[in-house]
Amino acid sequence: MIGNVRPRTLDELETPFVAVDLDRVDNNIATLQSRCDAAGVANRPHIKTHKLPFLAHRQVRAGACGITVQKLSEAEVMVQSGLDDLLITYNLVGEHKARRLARLASLANVRVALDNAIALETVIKAARLAQANIGVLVEFESSKGRQGVHDPQEAVDLATAAMDAPHVDFLGLMTYPSDEATVDWLERGIEALDRAGLPLSVISGGGTPGMHRIGTVPGLTEYRAGTSVYHDRKTVQQGAASINDCALHVHATVVSTPSANRAVLDTGSKVLTSDLAKPEPGFGMLIEHPEAIIAELSEEHAVVDTSNSATRPRVGERVRVLPNHVCPVSNLFETVILHRDSEILAELPVLARGAVR
Amino acid sequence: MIGNVRPRTLDELETPFVAVDLDRVDNNIATLQSRCDAAGVANRPHIKTHKLPFLAHRQVRAGACGITVQKLSEAEVMVQSGLDDLLITYNLVGEHKARRLARLASLANVRVALDNAIALETVIKAARLAQANIGVLVEFESSKGRQGVHDPQEAVDLATAAMDAPHVDFLGLMTYPSDEATVDWLERGIEALDRAGLPLSVISGGGTPGMHRIGTVPGLTEYRAGTSVYHDRKTVQQGAASINDCALHVHATVVSTPSANRAVLDTGSKVLTSDLAKPEPGFGMLIEHPEAIIAELSEEHAVVDTSNSATRPRVGERVRVLPNHVCPVSNLFETVILHRDSEILAELPVLARGAVR
Repeated sequence: MIGNVRPRTLDELETPFVAVDLDRVDNNIATLQSRCDAAGVANRPHIKTHKLPFLAHRQVRAGACGITVQKLSEAEVMVQSGLDDLLITYNLVGEHKARRLARLASLANVRVALDNAIALETVIKAARLAQANIGVLVEFESSKGRQGVHDPQEAVDLATAAMDAPHVDFLGLMTYPSDEATVDWLERGIEALDRAGLPLSVISGGGTPGMHRIGTVPGLTEYRAGTSVYHDRKTVQQGAASINDCALHVHATVVSTPSANRAVLDTGSKVLTSDLAKPEPGFGMLIEHPEAIIAELSEEHAVVDTSNSATRPRVGERVRVLPNHVCPVSNLFETVILHRDSEILAELPVLARGAVR
Repeated sequence: MIGNVRPRTLDELETPFVAVDLDRVDNNIATLQSRCDAAGVANRPHIKTHKLPFLAHRQVRAGACGITVQKLSEAEVMVQSGLDDLLITYNLVGEHKARRLARLASLANVRVALDNAIALETVIKAARLAQANIGVLVEFESSKGRQGVHDPQEAVDLATAAMDAPHVDFLGLMTYPSDEATVDWLERGIEALDRAGLPLSVISGGGTPGMHRIGTVPGLTEYRAGTSVYHDRKTVQQGAASINDCALHVHATVVSTPSANRAVLDTGSKVLTSDLAKPEPGFGMLIEHPEAIIAELSEEHAVVDTSNSATRPRVGERVRVLPNHVCPVSNLFETVILHRDSEILAELPVLARGAVR
């Protein structure tokens, strides 16, 4: 993208591209850290949002105890980039995963969250192969309806099995998000583990929308937030940030205005994804024309409805889009452009992009 | 992904991955070609679905006159891979695009579709820089509500301006999809161009759902279909194919069954995308449990509702997902696994993945 003559500012770059404002990122990193500090919990940010070792290290330097990743492949990228304390918040299932986890555990301090005995078998096998300690957190269900044990007795059984396995350390509990349902479950869960004589050194909660009320979940020792590093239209809508905190924008060009109330941008679902931010309409917010609605996406076209917009984009004009959901947008670009006040600082490879295994 | 010991069959591979059945692909390529032959139109398949030079060449060998691409970056990959006749169905706007188009035009036979004077300026500039001929098609609006001129006079004006520019050849008209609205527009469009004394050698239509009624749009000389090479849940729903024609599947593993009616797969929106196939429910079809519904996606989790399923997935089980919309799934993987009857033939790099510029 950057040729012989190095562009100095964002407006010299060809669209579409992703720009990340470092000042806003630094401010967002500091905000999360200070919220964790105020609540007296460790900060373990989730790197799934930025997928960049550069920012993971910046988060650790700002005070994070380590990082959170969702998949082994993200963990591998981060360990190879010098990060050394990782929590993988995902059930790892199967022989391939055991071998990869073993290699990781011989290189860095790794802990894994899980909610079933087969995923625990993977960790036990990995710890045996590596002859290195691997920490285990048991995931429990809060309000997400996704994953995690429901009955505290399941947590007791998994914790007991983990304690019995060589090189496996049961560390505690993990959930997402941490909310009122978490408080309720934890009351029962802590009591059950206590009754079984099981130690509990970590209770890990998370979520960007909840980062301003970490202290309302008693017992949390650690917090995981991802989106807060960039923020997006959704976290603004959720009250976790303002528009001016948003650090990542897609820069696009208007390529057609085929009728009076329609404009087309060179950025479709391959850039913005089809993720929505209901009840807000559309597939992102157009910074320069905030009343316009990105009404339809094809893979390469964004069709903008300008019926209710005071201003009308013209062909050739460059615009910025604030994504509805920023994490999968990071996943779609080989590189992001790091800048301060539109001055280009670096073109960073998104090293943990596409890390689904 | 493939280590020292080369896996022979799909079930030896770590999930999630994308598998492409070559026999089904070959059958789909032959079907589209025979539909075009029967209608007496040239076949110019859109490579945005597979993004693979290997399959683009296979389509050309089966009788296609050339290929269609959506972005310059896709065109560059295909020209560098030996394809030499390309239609870019996208407005190219700006200086960067003019320079890249010029380079392409000096290497291959390139034509560009556009709907406005600024995009035409890009082509004129590129042809001047390259001193090579570039063909132009004017895009008109059918029923999509996306892009294309509305008034036939706009087509006449663009065609006239193209004819007047050195090294630019006005070739004809292009639309997507080609349907009843196309028939209506073409009646007026052909008459207007004819009255202005403008030649019209190409009328290009397209769309997988319409590939079985190409002949019902009089005057078409060329057809562009993309999804038909793989098909997906949507094109099956549209009646363009059967489930057994679908050539691409995501292979996944069940990583959790946290409650009686819920299972979780290791494949989320970073694999399946958030694209829907309404009125069908869910984010894809589970081949092994067709009554189960992929009800929710996170980036790495697919939450499956098994309330109405006769069978219940178990942790560790491997399953196949037929995507709702296959094209953006191709965009999310570095490689796809080509196979016949589950025997691995090759791991193909998805060379035109991420090609948004």
